[in-house]
Amino acid sequence: MIKLIGGGVCAAKGFRANGVHCGIRKNKIKKDLALIVSDVPATAAAVYTTNLVKGAPLLVTKKHLANGVAQAIICNSGNANTCNANGVEIAEHMSELVGAIAGIDQNDVVVASTGVIGQPLDITPIKAGMPALVSGLSADHLGARAAAEAIMTTDTVAKEVAVEFEVGGKTCRLGGIAKGSGMIHPNMATMLVFITTDVKISAEMLQKALSTDIQKTFNMVSIDGDTSTNDMVTVLANGMAENDEIVSDGEDFSTFMTALNTVTVQLCRMLAGDGEGATKLLECKVTGAKCPQCAKTVAKSVICSSLLKSAMFGADANWGRVLCAIGYSGAAVDVDKIGVAFRSAKGTITVCENGAGVEFSEEIAKEILLEKEIEILVSLGEGEHEATAWGCDLTYDYVKINGDYRT
Amino acid sequence: MIKLIGGGVCAAKGFRANGVHCGIRKNKIKKDLALIVSDVPATAAAVYTTNLVKGAPLLVTKKHLANGVAQAIICNSGNANTCNANGVEIAEHMSELVGAIAGIDQNDVVVASTGVIGQPLDITPIKAGMPALVSGLSADHLGARAAAEAIMTTDTVAKEVAVEFEVGGKTCRLGGIAKGSGMIHPNMATMLVFITTDVKISAEMLQKALSTDIQKTFNMVSIDGDTSTNDMVTVLANGMAENDEIVSDGEDFSTFMTALNTVTVQLCRMLAGDGEGATKLLECKVTGAKCPQCAKTVAKSVICSSLLKSAMFGADANWGRVLCAIGYSGAAVDVDKIGVAFRSAKGTITVCENGAGVEFSEEIAKEILLEKEIEILVSLGEGEHEATAWGCDLTYDYVKINGDYRT
Repeated sequence: MIKLIGGGVCAAKGFRANGVHCGIRKNKIKKDLALIVSDVPATAAAVYTTNLVKGAPLLVTKKHLANGVAQAIICNSGNANTCNANGVEIAEHMSELVGAIAGIDQNDVVVASTGVIGQPLDITPIKAGMPALVSGLSADHLGARAAAEAIMTTDTVAKEVAVEFEVGGKTCRLGGIAKGSGMIHPNMATMLVFITTDVKISAEMLQKALSTDIQKTFNMVSIDGDTSTNDMVTVLANGMAENDEIVSDGEDFSTFMTALNTVTVQLCRMLAGDGEGATKLLECKVTGAKCPQCAKTVAKSVICSSLLKSAMFGADANWGRVLCAIGYSGAAVDVDKIGVAFRSAKGTITVCENGAGVEFSEEIAKEILLEKEIEILVSLGEGEHEATAWGCDLTYDYVKINGDYRT
Repeated sequence: MIKLIGGGVCAAKGFRANGVHCGIRKNKIKKDLALIVSDVPATAAAVYTTNLVKGAPLLVTKKHLANGVAQAIICNSGNANTCNANGVEIAEHMSELVGAIAGIDQNDVVVASTGVIGQPLDITPIKAGMPALVSGLSADHLGARAAAEAIMTTDTVAKEVAVEFEVGGKTCRLGGIAKGSGMIHPNMATMLVFITTDVKISAEMLQKALSTDIQKTFNMVSIDGDTSTNDMVTVLANGMAENDEIVSDGEDFSTFMTALNTVTVQLCRMLAGDGEGATKLLECKVTGAKCPQCAKTVAKSVICSSLLKSAMFGADANWGRVLCAIGYSGAAVDVDKIGVAFRSAKGTITVCENGAGVEFSEEIAKEILLEKEIEILVSLGEGEHEATAWGCDLTYDYVKINGDYRT
């Protein structure tokens, strides 16, 4: 049984966190530097963006995680430290500072940055803020919350979730924080997500769990079709739950996968629902596909359509745009078998059957689509495979936020 | 020599056109039915959308053009006649009406529809409007203009262009009209474009000219990433310029290709600049690519980025988003060699060299980006290939237009 609990990245035993304003951002009430530390070295796994332009912090993190071990995560917001001549040097300097002040090996530090691309990142405020950041580390929810807040960019809410479950009779916990909320269209990797757990698991199985899970979670999220240069998901597992180490497939690994998936799906929903400018969370659920990839391709194409996203903002049941997005998705589908319905807390309405429109009440459709969470249900009628993708509506505020992001 | 002239689709000898309001749209001042007729049967070529969901008119047109001959084009706006149970029947009925009233073979009629997907198209207003449409056909610019206006949907300006050139000592003309302006992301085919010419050319060479040209023109345009269900480009060549028939490659074919390209590039610029809600035309010019496809992939990725499009709306020189879009494009590029500059009527400003930012004046960049036509110049420093893609900025109005398109 998987139980939702509080505590975010500090829910698991042996993790402390903090977030402070150190001065990378001009706005003094916005925290801009986060730190998560495990009491003991932890097994670590990560996946990274597939964008060829990679943030310098990712290059440093990749090097540090080569041995599958990490003990801390440092992350700043307000500057992506990407496309800068001295980016790697600055990222190394950040881990060096954490190592020196927190007393851990600097090669066990995960480094991440998020914000504007192409502006040099000054180490001065980070150096100045480090003592307060480290001395304020706490194992309670306040610490986790501060870290979740410090990694936010255009996010309007901090995103954290944690679960409790049992592995081999031992109580284990796993929690994560995430930041969106634009330039989100993960591909084989994903946006910034930090997950901590006290489960004892080998580095190999931890990486397997993560790499498998993201295919159906973060890789199925799109806010705006732009795959970031700094996407990263990291999991630290410090083993302090004292379960028998998970070293192979089996019941324990399945339990861990389910716990991980519970957290990642919630983070996906939070990321999508808080997409830049979004007023609605959109979930496209595809069923009846003849292959798993067909289902995913269709779901993601629908969730990425600017036209459909705009229609959802206007609560307009313009299902022709769903059909259109399925048609150009690249998946081989039989158009004449497609069915479409919209569902929300107000009910469900079928708008298309066998590839053609059916009569429906525009009033009821409007009422359903005015809700904050909308499911777009697509049935392909060709097989047993299914997939879900998450996104949000396209709004005036997306344009506003991104028309002058740097100022 | 290719000379720009007036006259649109009526510039070439032997073509008449007209556009009327017949009642498909409620707004009585918006024309909704266009007709273009050649005095004699013409050689015809066409390319169609690759969307699996195809408008019924395309299926009928494909059948009618199987023999490479057409004499008329009928096109309504206000309804796409797509995803309707009786769509093919209605499209056939439209060509039947044209055939009967204009006195031509109904199998020589190209049928096109544009507008909302999934609402039955009533033949009644089309039937009622046909006599006025046919009796008003005219070979002067007023006829061409009326046709250009009648195919508009959310377009804000009618799009037409024509050229004059010589083939084997004979004066030839070629003109076209196009409609945008949302659901535009052509792929191997394109949006609605009708081109007429009096050049004498074989069906095979006409198709070759068109299929070659669109790879560098319409297929390089994107307004919103949504590939329409009803995209089509058709060229009718009626041979009335009396040049020796073009039946193979050579000087005459090259001249024709250049004339065609002159018209299609202008139509691309018009389509992009008048994209839904657009305030700016964006042209991404990529040079120094190691292969033609690399250049095209990079140019199109940049022009499709919602983040960059929003930044351009805000006249914000956020070049990191250009790098980001290049990085996730899928093209294999050496990031450390990328250069980026912005250019407009106010001048040129370099913002990135060797994959990293250079110091530049934000004031001058702002002044350059406040213009209506912006070039994004990307140099890859790896070879000799280049490509251009056209698009537009992402604005509040795009969201507004598409939030309630159907109402």
